[in-house]
Amino acid sequence: MLTEELMKSLSVRTGSKILLLLVDGLGGLPESGKTELEAAETPNLDNLASESACGLTHPISMGITPGSGPSHLALFGYDPLRYEIGRGVLEALGVGLEMTDRDVAARGNFATISPENIITDRRAGRIPTEKNRELCEKIRKEIPEVDGVRIIMEPGKEHRFTVLFRGDGLDGCIADADPQKEGKGPAPAQALSAEAEATAAIINKFIGRATKVLAGEHPANTVLMRGFAKYPQMPSMSELFKLKPAAIASYPMYRGIAKLVGMALPDAGETIEDEIKALRNNWDRFDYFYLHYKYPDSRGEDGDFGGKVKAIEEMDRHIPELLALEPDVVAVTSDHSTPSLLRSHSWHPNPFLLWSPYARADGVNRFGETQCLRGALGQFPSLEVMPLLLAHALKLKKFGA
Amino acid sequence: MLTEELMKSLSVRTGSKILLLLVDGLGGLPESGKTELEAAETPNLDNLASESACGLTHPISMGITPGSGPSHLALFGYDPLRYEIGRGVLEALGVGLEMTDRDVAARGNFATISPENIITDRRAGRIPTEKNRELCEKIRKEIPEVDGVRIIMEPGKEHRFTVLFRGDGLDGCIADADPQKEGKGPAPAQALSAEAEATAAIINKFIGRATKVLAGEHPANTVLMRGFAKYPQMPSMSELFKLKPAAIASYPMYRGIAKLVGMALPDAGETIEDEIKALRNNWDRFDYFYLHYKYPDSRGEDGDFGGKVKAIEEMDRHIPELLALEPDVVAVTSDHSTPSLLRSHSWHPNPFLLWSPYARADGVNRFGETQCLRGALGQFPSLEVMPLLLAHALKLKKFGA
Repeated sequence: MLTEELMKSLSVRTGSKILLLLVDGLGGLPESGKTELEAAETPNLDNLASESACGLTHPISMGITPGSGPSHLALFGYDPLRYEIGRGVLEALGVGLEMTDRDVAARGNFATISPENIITDRRAGRIPTEKNRELCEKIRKEIPEVDGVRIIMEPGKEHRFTVLFRGDGLDGCIADADPQKEGKGPAPAQALSAEAEATAAIINKFIGRATKVLAGEHPANTVLMRGFAKYPQMPSMSELFKLKPAAIASYPMYRGIAKLVGMALPDAGETIEDEIKALRNNWDRFDYFYLHYKYPDSRGEDGDFGGKVKAIEEMDRHIPELLALEPDVVAVTSDHSTPSLLRSHSWHPNPFLLWSPYARADGVNRFGETQCLRGALGQFPSLEVMPLLLAHALKLKKFGA
Repeated sequence: MLTEELMKSLSVRTGSKILLLLVDGLGGLPESGKTELEAAETPNLDNLASESACGLTHPISMGITPGSGPSHLALFGYDPLRYEIGRGVLEALGVGLEMTDRDVAARGNFATISPENIITDRRAGRIPTEKNRELCEKIRKEIPEVDGVRIIMEPGKEHRFTVLFRGDGLDGCIADADPQKEGKGPAPAQALSAEAEATAAIINKFIGRATKVLAGEHPANTVLMRGFAKYPQMPSMSELFKLKPAAIASYPMYRGIAKLVGMALPDAGETIEDEIKALRNNWDRFDYFYLHYKYPDSRGEDGDFGGKVKAIEEMDRHIPELLALEPDVVAVTSDHSTPSLLRSHSWHPNPFLLWSPYARADGVNRFGETQCLRGALGQFPSLEVMPLLLAHALKLKKFGA
């Protein structure tokens, strides 16, 4: 894989258009002999595969199960071992908070502390989401800022919330303010470097003041915080690859990851139909489109083989609408596998197809894990997807003379 | 491939059990159209393959023939280009010497020196092993130590022996004390760094005193020494991968390599039946088992195609006993190929199968080099075997959020 500097020097802007259809969690495992994708009826993807170069991608390396952050970064052409998206940042992106590079993000829990100063329940009995919203509102009003650092708080489900600390000179190199186990006293935020000490002090003041605000409450009478992280600084896709990229994604987390690498974020509505409409409406304005389709991952996480099959079949029905836009290069793949057998992300490689007039077709005429094994692209790291897309779009100059 | 630090941070201890069946020298080359493995009748391995993900592993990289040290290290999850096992250390492990981290090991030859101080035979006419034993015994008695450094000497075959120098502050960075060619004077041990000078002086004193002890002998009247090396310091498998590993191996060299990475070494007897009994008796005590089966390599080195076929068939008959232990993950592979056509280790990749309820089976229903080419795992470095085993045993957390 080439360095970013080399990619920068080789990439050129052209009029050709790339469409990356990311079918979240598409890869799977066989149940009764076939994977979800192999069990699905996908005549349109199969047709496309028969004119494409197929293969399988590894998000990180063999055996490693990726989170959504690193698996997306790799597909966007960013080394996921070099750029880390902190847990707090991903959470903030997931709940739709807009982050700036002055922010430190953190995940939080409402928790129960005893009069003896012992954490007796790290999840405050999983209070209802309604109660969570009410408590966040109360803290927001009482603690709009700490020593000039703005506090931005967003409730999640049950006992979970997200906080952004927004101010100058903040640092995310801070250990969790969470004893991890019940029966222990609260653990203050601890700076892991000298630069982070001021930030840790502010976080601890916030925890102290929030605990005072919650004094009359039960069981949610304190907060734990973890996953402190700054918004990562990354070169944009336009800088590295001379692309004008747009993300067509409904879910906040994927929009957030796309924003990290400088993609535009047109409104994409909620359904796949909305997304395709947004793609069509923005087709003339950009030259790289990341289209995110969520449901196969959701059904995989539910352990719902049949539901995942149906979600894949629904995507398949929309393929002709995508091709009608006449992209110069189309790739279809997943960020990671989500086998319903495992009910979670997994380490298995992702089926991948690349269509372009310049793709070396390989006789694969069914889009599935087993068939992609016989494809022209073999097995390769997701990080090499971007150079392949750019090459097939004739957006890369020759390397060397 | 992830760094050791990342593997450390992702690995978790669980109750699942991994069995790595290492069939030494299994990979081969066709004679009359089939390799040894393809010519062998292996109904049990074939059955297992049909439920497994298959592939081919490269011990180091394409075209590189490995010794047993690096090829084993790679399978155990250690970068063989980072950790070098010095030749003297491998020799010491091979003759069953127990090394400590205070030792410098070396290989030695008895040799013939003329009255004019010229090495006239680097192998002392390949003296009988019996004579070798007698001379080692004599030197042991006369030179139990040099300047407080203990001398531990072990005869090998014909003119070969191994020495451990055991003492504080020894250093292995020393050039061979061997003129390499006959007709030259003896070459004293030379320190390659300032830290090794004291050790080189001790080695040269030992050579001088041994030559005096041998003064009345002929043709073995001096010693040459080479391959000086300290016992390498390596993180244990338990540190890196949170495993409780055991090696079930009869031959000293393989036990020695396993000891380097912190495996327990239950007594494994001498035959494959003994080894399987040892495996069964220790099944409850560990969660990772390396089972070493030697004979295909030995027959390959003999150039005995038929003998290697028989050795593979013998292993195949024992597969049901291994599966009866109900491991969660089973891998079958070799450390390197030993084609009987070459009568030596070779660079050809190793057939590999991985069975687990979470392996993506691939239609390969015959365990052989040609068939594994079509397997789900493709061709990959042996170094990625450990992450794959851990993943399929559900012993790795997700990377990133």
